[in-house]
Amino acid sequence: MTSSTLTFTSQFQSHTTEFLHLQPISLPEVVGTAQVKVKFLAAPVNVLDLVVLAGKYPVKPQTKYDQALVPGYEGVGVVIEVGGLVTALRIGEHVLPKDHGLGTWRTHTVVDADKLVRIPTPSNPVFASLLKMGYTPAYLLLQNMQYLKAGDWVIQNTATGMIAQAVIQFARLQGVRTVNIMRDRKDFDVVRSRLLALSADMVLSESQLEALVQVQPLSHTRRIVLAIDSVFGSSGSRIANQLVQGGTYVSLGFLGGGGEVKLDVNEGLLFYKAVEFKGFRTSRELAGWSQEERSDLWAWMLKLYNKGQLKAPEVEIMHWGSPAQAQDGEELEKKLLDVVEKTANRVVGMPKQIFVFEQ
Amino acid sequence: MTSSTLTFTSQFQSHTTEFLHLQPISLPEVVGTAQVKVKFLAAPVNVLDLVVLAGKYPVKPQTKYDQALVPGYEGVGVVIEVGGLVTALRIGEHVLPKDHGLGTWRTHTVVDADKLVRIPTPSNPVFASLLKMGYTPAYLLLQNMQYLKAGDWVIQNTATGMIAQAVIQFARLQGVRTVNIMRDRKDFDVVRSRLLALSADMVLSESQLEALVQVQPLSHTRRIVLAIDSVFGSSGSRIANQLVQGGTYVSLGFLGGGGEVKLDVNEGLLFYKAVEFKGFRTSRELAGWSQEERSDLWAWMLKLYNKGQLKAPEVEIMHWGSPAQAQDGEELEKKLLDVVEKTANRVVGMPKQIFVFEQ
Repeated sequence: MTSSTLTFTSQFQSHTTEFLHLQPISLPEVVGTAQVKVKFLAAPVNVLDLVVLAGKYPVKPQTKYDQALVPGYEGVGVVIEVGGLVTALRIGEHVLPKDHGLGTWRTHTVVDADKLVRIPTPSNPVFASLLKMGYTPAYLLLQNMQYLKAGDWVIQNTATGMIAQAVIQFARLQGVRTVNIMRDRKDFDVVRSRLLALSADMVLSESQLEALVQVQPLSHTRRIVLAIDSVFGSSGSRIANQLVQGGTYVSLGFLGGGGEVKLDVNEGLLFYKAVEFKGFRTSRELAGWSQEERSDLWAWMLKLYNKGQLKAPEVEIMHWGSPAQAQDGEELEKKLLDVVEKTANRVVGMPKQIFVFEQ
Repeated sequence: MTSSTLTFTSQFQSHTTEFLHLQPISLPEVVGTAQVKVKFLAAPVNVLDLVVLAGKYPVKPQTKYDQALVPGYEGVGVVIEVGGLVTALRIGEHVLPKDHGLGTWRTHTVVDADKLVRIPTPSNPVFASLLKMGYTPAYLLLQNMQYLKAGDWVIQNTATGMIAQAVIQFARLQGVRTVNIMRDRKDFDVVRSRLLALSADMVLSESQLEALVQVQPLSHTRRIVLAIDSVFGSSGSRIANQLVQGGTYVSLGFLGGGGEVKLDVNEGLLFYKAVEFKGFRTSRELAGWSQEERSDLWAWMLKLYNKGQLKAPEVEIMHWGSPAQAQDGEELEKKLLDVVEKTANRVVGMPKQIFVFEQ
């Protein structure tokens, strides 16, 4: 069976793909009794994947191929072979990884069935591939970090990010409003319109926010109870300072560089305003969830997508053919690594990068 | 009826008692039907009282006398007269204020019975006068801020403070161990012995802690799950950094000067170590508690005291006679204000200041 995987043999050295390699892999013809064979359909390149490659993410890759680790923590696949004792999955069913670490940057895998979660057949595999690490964190941020009532406000930075776009949409579903902050950029008005179309209530650049709050904190007229920070440092402090009494600040922690940038937390916030500061990690929030619970969550999200209540973000697709199809394996490798580099050196406003596999 | 009160007529200007005055007060001979007359027995001077005087505490004084506010949020009294419709309290019963703001720096008060909580007759009124703002915060810090199991550790600074001493004792009752940090001081060994005698497990000066953790974080060999910070700034950051994965940092917020000193919170703590940062306020934690629930809590603490399982801290008593007894009202005023000044300009290791009223 012809298949291929990206692997990495060592710690990814900040923003270089030197240790990433495309390898042809041969999968067993017959899977183990508790295993299934999965053909992947789409696998996104997430900032979190780069944190993993840099050896800085707490959950490590779970799969090795030929001594090398297989990267990619998110993706959607279809079951193409089923072991004799597997009852939970059937050929033709679609699946997402249950936990972080599965290794999705490959055309196929053979894996224990209990590492997968069944989802309904998605109308758009690219959307489905973003459920676990795009839409699920957004959902859990609004569910688990702070008690939110209709009419409450959430403030977030990196408003153009995948998770932020999903937060806007889930917030709308529960009557919660959003202030969305993004970096100053030339195409601000275009992006602002796009976010408003997603149902953002307020879209500001960092400098607009700064100017505005010098006149009056946003919280004077808005019940801002949750701040979602993907930046840290002064941007994070700025949104934390917009919270009302008893609000919660949450760090997504991906983008701040792991401990170098600092957040100023003062007594005004911590004691007088009673703001809580915490970090968010999807894997921790989902830790107690069964396969069935995850399956139900993702089926519901697919339903929302089909009804037009959730939208897929803008993506840039890189078609990952089989090495056999490619004229030159090295050329494919180069193209795949370019995609990873794009996310590593991400430019403001760059669309999400996704590997899409041959159907 | 001869009685007197301290009042303050304006915002207390940082560490001066210029706006504090002793006034003779005349109380009604007959109390309202829902009221009781209370004679105070002891009323401590807490750092929180000074924050109130400075206009910086969220809960403001609830009583005025002759247009001036009555300070003092903690104390124990005895009921000496009861209104016709009061059934919950009887003459001779002992009481504590239910909420902040009652005004205890006075010999007597007439107050609605529902502002008071009945306690059993205390064997030591000075200990009873410290229940609400010394022992109760300590108890709630260990109950409500982090799930604590036997064998867990708590780290705290300002180890010689009233609350810290109570934390040491309540921790021992639940099998929880304490690391206690205090400022470098000449009589370190003496104080260390005293804290060890209270059942502190580890007592270090700030500089000893700093030297120790440069070799190895305390959390490598101790499950430190809760950090209680009364200092903020570098001392607060130092104890926050001793927490294990999933720990909680709590700011008591009294001593850091209200927003000027800052705490460095980095992603290592917030995201990777999943430490939560929050402020603690007794009034917030007790907000939902009925009079009966508070009464039960304090009765239990008095029982622990009588059994020798809680100890009263070292205190310095200032006898507050009646103005009639005093040769010179001005002289008494000066003595009382000196006591307040002592707490305002508190020196490391100074014992707690308490007003004790004539029996």
